[in-house]
Amino acid sequence: MGEAYRWNWLIEWGTPSSAHMYAVKKHIFQGRSEFQEIQVLEYEDLGKALVLDGKTQSAIIDEFVYHEALVHPAMLLHGSPEKVLILGGGEGATAREVLRFKAVKRVVMVDIDPVVIEVAKKYLPEWHQGSFDDPRLELIIGDGLKYVMEEGETFDVIIADLADPIEAGPAYKLYVKEFYEAVKKRLRPGGVFVTQATSPTLMPYTFGVIYNTIRSVFAHASYYMVYVKSFDSMWGFVLASDDKDPEELNRVNIDERLAQLVEGENRFYDSTGHRWMFSIPKHIRTEVEGVKEIATMDNPVFTPA
Amino acid sequence: MGEAYRWNWLIEWGTPSSAHMYAVKKHIFQGRSEFQEIQVLEYEDLGKALVLDGKTQSAIIDEFVYHEALVHPAMLLHGSPEKVLILGGGEGATAREVLRFKAVKRVVMVDIDPVVIEVAKKYLPEWHQGSFDDPRLELIIGDGLKYVMEEGETFDVIIADLADPIEAGPAYKLYVKEFYEAVKKRLRPGGVFVTQATSPTLMPYTFGVIYNTIRSVFAHASYYMVYVKSFDSMWGFVLASDDKDPEELNRVNIDERLAQLVEGENRFYDSTGHRWMFSIPKHIRTEVEGVKEIATMDNPVFTPA
Amino acid sequence: MGEAYRWNWLIEWGTPSSAHMYAVKKHIFQGRSEFQEIQVLEYEDLGKALVLDGKTQSAIIDEFVYHEALVHPAMLLHGSPEKVLILGGGEGATAREVLRFKAVKRVVMVDIDPVVIEVAKKYLPEWHQGSFDDPRLELIIGDGLKYVMEEGETFDVIIADLADPIEAGPAYKLYVKEFYEAVKKRLRPGGVFVTQATSPTLMPYTFGVIYNTIRSVFAHASYYMVYVKSFDSMWGFVLASDDKDPEELNRVNIDERLAQLVEGENRFYDSTGHRWMFSIPKHIRTEVEGVKEIATMDNPVFTPA
Amino acid sequence: MGEAYRWNWLIEWGTPSSAHMYAVKKHIFQGRSEFQEIQVLEYEDLGKALVLDGKTQSAIIDEFVYHEALVHPAMLLHGSPEKVLILGGGEGATAREVLRFKAVKRVVMVDIDPVVIEVAKKYLPEWHQGSFDDPRLELIIGDGLKYVMEEGETFDVIIADLADPIEAGPAYKLYVKEFYEAVKKRLRPGGVFVTQATSPTLMPYTFGVIYNTIRSVFAHASYYMVYVKSFDSMWGFVLASDDKDPEELNRVNIDERLAQLVEGENRFYDSTGHRWMFSIPKHIRTEVEGVKEIATMDNPVFTPA
Repeated sequence: MGEAYRWNWLIEWGTPSSAHMYAVKKHIFQGRSEFQEIQVLEYEDLGKALVLDGKTQSAIIDEFVYHEALVHPAMLLHGSPEKVLILGGGEGATAREVLRFKAVKRVVMVDIDPVVIEVAKKYLPEWHQGSFDDPRLELIIGDGLKYVMEEGETFDVIIADLADPIEAGPAYKLYVKEFYEAVKKRLRPGGVFVTQATSPTLMPYTFGVIYNTIRSVFAHASYYMVYVKSFDSMWGFVLASDDKDPEELNRVNIDERLAQLVEGENRFYDSTGHRWMFSIPKHIRTEVEGVKEIATMDNPVFTPA
Repeated sequence: MGEAYRWNWLIEWGTPSSAHMYAVKKHIFQGRSEFQEIQVLEYEDLGKALVLDGKTQSAIIDEFVYHEALVHPAMLLHGSPEKVLILGGGEGATAREVLRFKAVKRVVMVDIDPVVIEVAKKYLPEWHQGSFDDPRLELIIGDGLKYVMEEGETFDVIIADLADPIEAGPAYKLYVKEFYEAVKKRLRPGGVFVTQATSPTLMPYTFGVIYNTIRSVFAHASYYMVYVKSFDSMWGFVLASDDKDPEELNRVNIDERLAQLVEGENRFYDSTGHRWMFSIPKHIRTEVEGVKEIATMDNPVFTPA
Repeated sequence: MGEAYRWNWLIEWGTPSSAHMYAVKKHIFQGRSEFQEIQVLEYEDLGKALVLDGKTQSAIIDEFVYHEALVHPAMLLHGSPEKVLILGGGEGATAREVLRFKAVKRVVMVDIDPVVIEVAKKYLPEWHQGSFDDPRLELIIGDGLKYVMEEGETFDVIIADLADPIEAGPAYKLYVKEFYEAVKKRLRPGGVFVTQATSPTLMPYTFGVIYNTIRSVFAHASYYMVYVKSFDSMWGFVLASDDKDPEELNRVNIDERLAQLVEGENRFYDSTGHRWMFSIPKHIRTEVEGVKEIATMDNPVFTPA
Repeated sequence: MGEAYRWNWLIEWGTPSSAHMYAVKKHIFQGRSEFQEIQVLEYEDLGKALVLDGKTQSAIIDEFVYHEALVHPAMLLHGSPEKVLILGGGEGATAREVLRFKAVKRVVMVDIDPVVIEVAKKYLPEWHQGSFDDPRLELIIGDGLKYVMEEGETFDVIIADLADPIEAGPAYKLYVKEFYEAVKKRLRPGGVFVTQATSPTLMPYTFGVIYNTIRSVFAHASYYMVYVKSFDSMWGFVLASDDKDPEELNRVNIDERLAQLVEGENRFYDSTGHRWMFSIPKHIRTEVEGVKEIATMDNPVFTPA
């Protein structure tokens, strides 16, 4: 057989009836923490990637799309974010984007898995780019849910960069009403919250419940989505605030605001990228906005089995 | 093992190093024409689909996204299309969308593979919805390249809904400069051309060459893209004309124009869908517009092996 | 990609952690009976095959290995079998081999699934070779367990050619002590019983329990095994009788006895094939004979999940 | 999805149309030498295994079957082997079996890939069990072909434990007439040669050519085969000598001879195992012995692509 026949594969299951197969060039790291199997792989097509429990978290060829999409709209909506809380975000790339904002004075990052952090520090320098050493960053190894539920410091922007709400894992408790209410209490006046919210195309029901739940807690909530090649699908986010309406962003000059607020230049997010992310096609709106359920601690939402 | 273990699979190879696996519930039809292996499958997750040489052409859950995206912008840009030429389009869904335009008096459809047409008529009624019986449609079984290269009838809109330019197949000759020049001669004054142009995310070089080649032939050319779930990727198109600038469409009220020109209501394409398709993010613009090559009969472009 | 990239695959799961992938050239038949999904496939490498619930039952390239192995030792051990009962055996190839024995006057075949029988008659002529039309054969569509449990006709040889004892299916009841006791009552003096018994290499525990259970019911019991390429593994059988010791066969000239008793020539089974099948290597003996459990209706044995 | 969904897989291609999928629990080592990709994997089902260029060489659950099958018949046939040459055999398990023979005074092992040797020493102690430290063993890193072609020391037994003759690799030159003639010159009077010879069931033509070629060089040559679960297929060997006929072994008491000559007890090979290996069923004999071609340097034989 020709050399095209690859033998090392990561099969990423979307459902029991569909999967993506990725040929693996190099197994850079494999380990198991208390929470999950952690791998750093070099894919033939996507390059280096972090894979948790068989799910590609981000790949070097386009991690910037996901991370700019997650961080920038919330930061711009706030306008002058000084204190930012990141829940999850182990690769350090969410922190990297936050720290690019000139106004930022303090970032607290709470991640539950110290092994992911160690792996990111050692194997993913292209992701964190030294963020873990930035004096403005305080890293707390701990449970984001517990951290938020307690009384404590308040923030201008809170960013949830968490694993999907799978039934087997603990993350689903960070996609319920009680959690969002606690998040709200941790926001300063004018505060903004954003969360990754699974895929509006692969799992529109799950995404719709998350959106609906957040909408029931905050005065304003919008969702948006981006195509991430290394996920081979659209990925979605929900942006919410009691004081600021995300719709405002559609009326400002994104390019100008970025130039004012951010060091360096974005690779993805700009005026056009913003318009793209916030233009949700009709058939997806219909599916997402047709969902009426809300997730609570007693009745959470999961990704489909 | 639980019942979740599927055994019938279609593995759709993107490259030798990545593939999508789809579980097949039912093999509805399988045959081989002079040109290709033709299958109608019922996927577990995507429902009924047409598959040519192992590539999913369209699936029932979202064929409307692809077909509205292909047809509507070109027809709107023209404004009052009476005569339309479709090259390819065997499923009959491109014809279906064209025939929804009130102004249309005559549609010529040229498809090379009579087996695909027979299969579509019999197994894909949800696609064609009777288009093959519309008295305005003339169906020609023949080579689209030859048809266009000859002198003959001219059209208001020409739509190329062809297989990808794979190295093994004949379709690559319909993605070269000489072909586009012939197409141009077949357009009436004010005429508009649109073609599917492969994926700007999966194969940006191929897509870029097609765009570049069309741009070298027509006074105006724009590209746009849409996420097609059943392809698990973005899909792209190029829209061109000597007389009309596609940019105009960004300044008109798409919803209003659709209401005037089209019977029934679209499921995907509207003002928001238009904005989404024509907002190309920076990192994709950079890749596509960085391509400088042009495809000719002697030096064609292929999809990557 | 080269033409070597196959897209239609049957993935046959052995365990959740191992599987065989077979490229499918042609889907000849697919249907679902009350009992199972039934497919007739043409594999690229193995040719035409019957596949039930995703498990290859037999392929044209070597079905003779399995069917001669199942039928001939039991028939030779008996010596002059006139009346034979086949449980299962839907392809008709077990009947074919039985009917080649000159002494045979009557064969009763009891199969539960009429769809399998119809499919075999229509699509598998190379298997049955007209057996279904032999006047000596009586075909009963019905439950083999019920048939055997009732009082009735007795036989010289009883052959169980049944699906594996999977937890989801009904066949596991034909691998328990109560069933074997009922089989024994249906044997004439000098009668012999043989059953397929799963794979002694893939599932030595299941195989060992079946052997052990049969040994607890009959005075003599031996197991033997054969490599079946289209299963990509060894396959095993248990041969038992109250009156005749299978070990006797190791002392007779198999080639001579076949020449006396059978019409035509075997493709696999002869003196050498016999010696091969009954020479069980030490490490397999150790595994199989280390099993102490017995299967009963209340405590059956299953293939591993 | 349940936890049964595995994501790390080794897909071992037999042909472009069939493959085995093995779930990988742990990637213990991965590296690339001058000659090949070398991996030590822990399979979910087969345990620890050495994998070269995507082909499982041996797995902990049954490496003893392959290695006893390769070594013992040749050593018994000789009767009192003092000097043994091993070509290949990087895992150290072939040396382990050779060193168990009481008569052995000197073993020369020639392996081309020093990385395989280092990996075996470090990660495969269950295979070599200290053989590399045995004072009777001399390890030469070098080209086995060149070593044999030169004049030099002669041996009682020569064992070829080499990679398959793939078209891309260098090993095919060790499966041709010129090589076997050189081997013969390196045998002492009464000397015996044995080689792994690919699979008589997966690639009967390749196997048949190797057998035929060896038969054309030596006065006596026999082939035999064994089922190796971790290859999911039968594996074959050719045993040859000018002075001793392998058929003699079928007339001696293997168990007694092993007791005399070997330290410790075998796990697989004994009288029954011998009978099993040397009883080649008719349909396989027909295929293998139907081959008439011979492999030479100018016209070598390869494994099928």
